[in-house]
Amino acid sequence: MKKPLILVTNDDGITAPGIRALIDVAARIGTPVVVAPDSPQSGMGHAITIHSPLRLKEEIIFSGIEAYSCSGTPVDCVKLAKNVVLKGRTIDLCVSGINHGSNVAINILYSGTMSAAMEGSLEGIPSIGFSLLDFAQDADFESGKPYIQQIMEYVLANKFGDSKLLNVNIPKLPFSELKGLKVCRQAEAGWKEDFIEGTDPSGKKYYWMSGEFRNDDGGIDTDVWALENGYISVVPCGHDLTMYESIQPLKNLEKVNALT
Amino acid sequence: MKKPLILVTNDDGITAPGIRALIDVAARIGTPVVVAPDSPQSGMGHAITIHSPLRLKEEIIFSGIEAYSCSGTPVDCVKLAKNVVLKGRTIDLCVSGINHGSNVAINILYSGTMSAAMEGSLEGIPSIGFSLLDFAQDADFESGKPYIQQIMEYVLANKFGDSKLLNVNIPKLPFSELKGLKVCRQAEAGWKEDFIEGTDPSGKKYYWMSGEFRNDDGGIDTDVWALENGYISVVPCGHDLTMYESIQPLKNLEKVNALT
Repeated sequence: MKKPLILVTNDDGITAPGIRALIDVAARIGTPVVVAPDSPQSGMGHAITIHSPLRLKEEIIFSGIEAYSCSGTPVDCVKLAKNVVLKGRTIDLCVSGINHGSNVAINILYSGTMSAAMEGSLEGIPSIGFSLLDFAQDADFESGKPYIQQIMEYVLANKFGDSKLLNVNIPKLPFSELKGLKVCRQAEAGWKEDFIEGTDPSGKKYYWMSGEFRNDDGGIDTDVWALENGYISVVPCGHDLTMYESIQPLKNLEKVNALT
Repeated sequence: MKKPLILVTNDDGITAPGIRALIDVAARIGTPVVVAPDSPQSGMGHAITIHSPLRLKEEIIFSGIEAYSCSGTPVDCVKLAKNVVLKGRTIDLCVSGINHGSNVAINILYSGTMSAAMEGSLEGIPSIGFSLLDFAQDADFESGKPYIQQIMEYVLANKFGDSKLLNVNIPKLPFSELKGLKVCRQAEAGWKEDFIEGTDPSGKKYYWMSGEFRNDDGGIDTDVWALENGYISVVPCGHDLTMYESIQPLKNLEKVNALT
């Protein structure tokens, strides 16, 4: 049987330890092809490069694995992979990560990792974003690997409703303390920002974003709850942002038609 | 009565004609404060600036209006506006645009205009993104103004379900041909990309994104349908990307807990 073709990307850049861990797992169950940013792209969200050209460079840093670095954003990587690198080949699965740090709740919007996976799903490819709750460069990506493999195999073998996108976060725990997988919803949680103000060497003022994550969602069916309780969180995601329940209450707005 | 404080931003940059049109309307019904990018930021999606400082500069290009340019992305502008420029003041409404070009369907994810408005809504501020279906620098932003004003006034005066975010697109038509407002859902439509390949002056290959918008959604309740039929489209949006109907089918995945 033909091995599945697995596109691997991330937002921390092609040299990040997290993507190496993901490539390891992908190589066990399929043929990975890597197209990842040539520099860190954290926080790039769903940004795309419109006004300048993109570059691709073949990389030999992963033994025996076809790999390219790209000068663009994570979403650019997926678009280039589909339309240039893998043109004419079927991508069976797109995986992004493993991100160095959490991508729970609303962070799917800010995260380059999740935006790359989202882009894969928009292109019709089953896609999964993986994140580990550890920002450290030497974070332990081993403990979650058996679960990552199971999730990839499950997605390759099964359909699950209309979602083509999973957001998977892994707590910072040794394998023996991981309680398993929990399928859940995105927590209603977000950031409380602050800005550090300073003065640069030439005397000009600057502002540097800071902030802390706040969870006001008491639900026990959320990704935040799952992670706090030792589970790997799995959130099926879509791309329809319409708030259907608000359409009817807004219909009055259509009455303002007669204007002068 | 105190005039409402209206934060105005965009993604085409503070010198774009579209933001000037939006400031004009905001000034009729409230006190606009402008915080907008100092350069074009189209396609930046929900990108934020994490690894470098941001700059703010007071601008006097809008007569009598408090205005600042910001070195960051559209989302950065909203965060800086809330936490620095307008710290301690209540922002009654956040408006973004008027974008030079359409932001229908899934484009809310790629669009800096809509991401700025989304960020406003995440901060708890009623927010509206406005886009005109005309990319031209000399596009006619006049015809939609009466409707833009009505929508702003409606949002300031009314609650409508839980949505704090509206995506408004205006067809490229003279005022007399605008049929009014249509409250609708996001069309299931997106981009079919292509990349132009070329060789730069130093002989290196480059790839430049191109593509066309494709609508495969036959519904007559979508933003694309409304615009094609002469209406201004109004889509209430949220930020919960969970695909709830996929949670149950995925529950089997939780059974893979016992791993070795």
